[in-house]
Amino acid sequence: MAIITLTSDFGHKDYFTSAIKGAILSEVPEAKIVDISHEISPFNIQEAAYILKNAYAHFPKGSIHMIGVDAEITKNKVHVALIVDGHYFIGADTGIFSLIFPEDKLEQIIVLNINQDKENISFPMKDVFVQAACHINRGGTLGVIGRQIDSLREVKNFQPTLSADGKMLIGQVIYIDHYGNVISNIKEKLFRESTLGKSFTIQLPRRYSIETIHRSYSMVSEGVMLCLFNSAGHLEISINKGDANISNGASELLGIKVKDRIGIEII
Amino acid sequence: MAIITLTSDFGHKDYFTSAIKGAILSEVPEAKIVDISHEISPFNIQEAAYILKNAYAHFPKGSIHMIGVDAEITKNKVHVALIVDGHYFIGADTGIFSLIFPEDKLEQIIVLNINQDKENISFPMKDVFVQAACHINRGGTLGVIGRQIDSLREVKNFQPTLSADGKMLIGQVIYIDHYGNVISNIKEKLFRESTLGKSFTIQLPRRYSIETIHRSYSMVSEGVMLCLFNSAGHLEISINKGDANISNGASELLGIKVKDRIGIEII
Amino acid sequence: MAIITLTSDFGHKDYFTSAIKGAILSEVPEAKIVDISHEISPFNIQEAAYILKNAYAHFPKGSIHMIGVDAEITKNKVHVALIVDGHYFIGADTGIFSLIFPEDKLEQIIVLNINQDKENISFPMKDVFVQAACHINRGGTLGVIGRQIDSLREVKNFQPTLSADGKMLIGQVIYIDHYGNVISNIKEKLFRESTLGKSFTIQLPRRYSIETIHRSYSMVSEGVMLCLFNSAGHLEISINKGDANISNGASELLGIKVKDRIGIEII
Repeated sequence: MAIITLTSDFGHKDYFTSAIKGAILSEVPEAKIVDISHEISPFNIQEAAYILKNAYAHFPKGSIHMIGVDAEITKNKVHVALIVDGHYFIGADTGIFSLIFPEDKLEQIIVLNINQDKENISFPMKDVFVQAACHINRGGTLGVIGRQIDSLREVKNFQPTLSADGKMLIGQVIYIDHYGNVISNIKEKLFRESTLGKSFTIQLPRRYSIETIHRSYSMVSEGVMLCLFNSAGHLEISINKGDANISNGASELLGIKVKDRIGIEII
Repeated sequence: MAIITLTSDFGHKDYFTSAIKGAILSEVPEAKIVDISHEISPFNIQEAAYILKNAYAHFPKGSIHMIGVDAEITKNKVHVALIVDGHYFIGADTGIFSLIFPEDKLEQIIVLNINQDKENISFPMKDVFVQAACHINRGGTLGVIGRQIDSLREVKNFQPTLSADGKMLIGQVIYIDHYGNVISNIKEKLFRESTLGKSFTIQLPRRYSIETIHRSYSMVSEGVMLCLFNSAGHLEISINKGDANISNGASELLGIKVKDRIGIEII
Repeated sequence: MAIITLTSDFGHKDYFTSAIKGAILSEVPEAKIVDISHEISPFNIQEAAYILKNAYAHFPKGSIHMIGVDAEITKNKVHVALIVDGHYFIGADTGIFSLIFPEDKLEQIIVLNINQDKENISFPMKDVFVQAACHINRGGTLGVIGRQIDSLREVKNFQPTLSADGKMLIGQVIYIDHYGNVISNIKEKLFRESTLGKSFTIQLPRRYSIETIHRSYSMVSEGVMLCLFNSAGHLEISINKGDANISNGASELLGIKVKDRIGIEII
């Protein structure tokens, strides 16, 4: 019995999430449902992609991941299901899958043929995705619930870029976490390949800079700024314990926001 | 094994909800517990009613729904359990059941006789409702845990009213959802029966008005105001994608609040 | 199959909690996981202790409680597992266990030997505690995953103190709950032993005072201040229904904060 996970921008107050769980349990009483996040900022597929990308692989292969972010069907946006890395994903083709899987091979992609009357679906996660998830959960194949397509919409993000002379790696802030940690799109592998063991200065907005990457938060004193590679492998700017108060995290204290530039000067 | 759902104003920080889950699992180790919402505004039975009304029916018949909102027993407020539409409900007789079921037949109602010493219960959801839910979950009948009564407290809400000349339908805002959508007490059936296919103008507070009802959010451009019937069948005022930011939802941008008047002028 | 509970300061947005659940379910597919709280204020072991202390005992004996608050390993802070009162606890030795169990007997304590390379763990709850929990869940003993130690770090809190002449009991505010209720460290037993049935005045900050302890919130009118012993046995200052609005709870309306002094004058 596969696990079904839920990722959405529903928040925790409304009836949306529980209606979905009730609908799943009505069809598959023994289903195991796990919430990934319901606090995605409304319609924000960038956030949803970052969170789901770093959550899904911890689940067993065969898990079914439903995405309820910007899921309304339109004439340019269909409902799809796909298999990647042995996991099933169900959502709208907003471009989110190109953000979650910039390099992974999509094994099979279908456009769902369940309930696709766009005049009469105000709650696609429940009216469409639940049926698809229950079908897969019961061992059904994708071919039965849709027609195969070859590719999905691509959203282009700003990609980290190394200057021609190899002296400057430019990335961008992509996410601020619950602790106010600032997370960039510079991953450890790219950083190592770009810096090649040389000295470097990490240039932050407002002229802050850091010249060391630590292995853990507590290698600096409380309240001190540091850089490390977080558990998702991204270069992160943090303030150790930031006075144990989220309003004092790195984002707030340093005035850094999503899309701000992070430069690595290689010396 | 029936599902047990939880609806409360406990929030997500305190030990209340997990203590209840622990108590249920101590009595019924294989119990399946689903959260409906714990973010009801404190003591707000109107919100709890709207959310539970639109969540419960998605669960299988036989599910047991516990309500922990304004649940303290007083000399005027007893603890009850009832069966409606094949579902069990356990809560305090605050009037909430008249809001959830304005027209449904209540099949059986009892006043609970478990732990009704009002001097010694500071946590009724755990000390009383858990025992009732576990009793029902094990297949016990209501008769064993209480004495039958005929009716419950009624709370009267402002009901949508059609003027004598059939030219004006007046409703009220009853809920603001996570996206800032404004939800009225005008349901689709009443709207159709009142407008009879004629033209109409939906009059909102602050002289905003809308003359069309759309079938889905994305039928208007992003940032544009629209009306539709939401997945619960209520007339809803929304701003499509409101800049993907909850603070820019319809409620905030149009300055509309719960209890504000919504008028439908029929032309 | 033991229950595994999770307590953390992760919040509800990030991938942290779901990654942990996925990792547990990958190792133990039939595991039953219950969230205690993920809204502990960042790094706040006092809050975590109050919440977990009042939640854990409602779960069946044998349950496994993972604590992800200030869990990074340092040269002064190791990862431990222990048995108390028939329950298993896994966390960092921050002193939190001395706050949860000021008087309980710790039956067995080990320092974990799983993944203790502190240079390479950025997510100890997943990389270390999950493995320990799954080992215990499968029936493994603590001896296999660590070496026994005799005691844990102690954090000293301000303890309620009765003056030498028995006329003044001084306590402190330790927690503000979701309703804005103010919770002190004065428990009912100490209160009874100190007041010995005499009259008393409860002195609050800003010269507020209360001379009665009620048995339930609704024994006073709505909006009126009262004292009672809450479901955890602590002396609590509350405002009945505080206008059904969390911003109008006792903490806000009376201007009382954590660490404020609560005095009981015994007359």
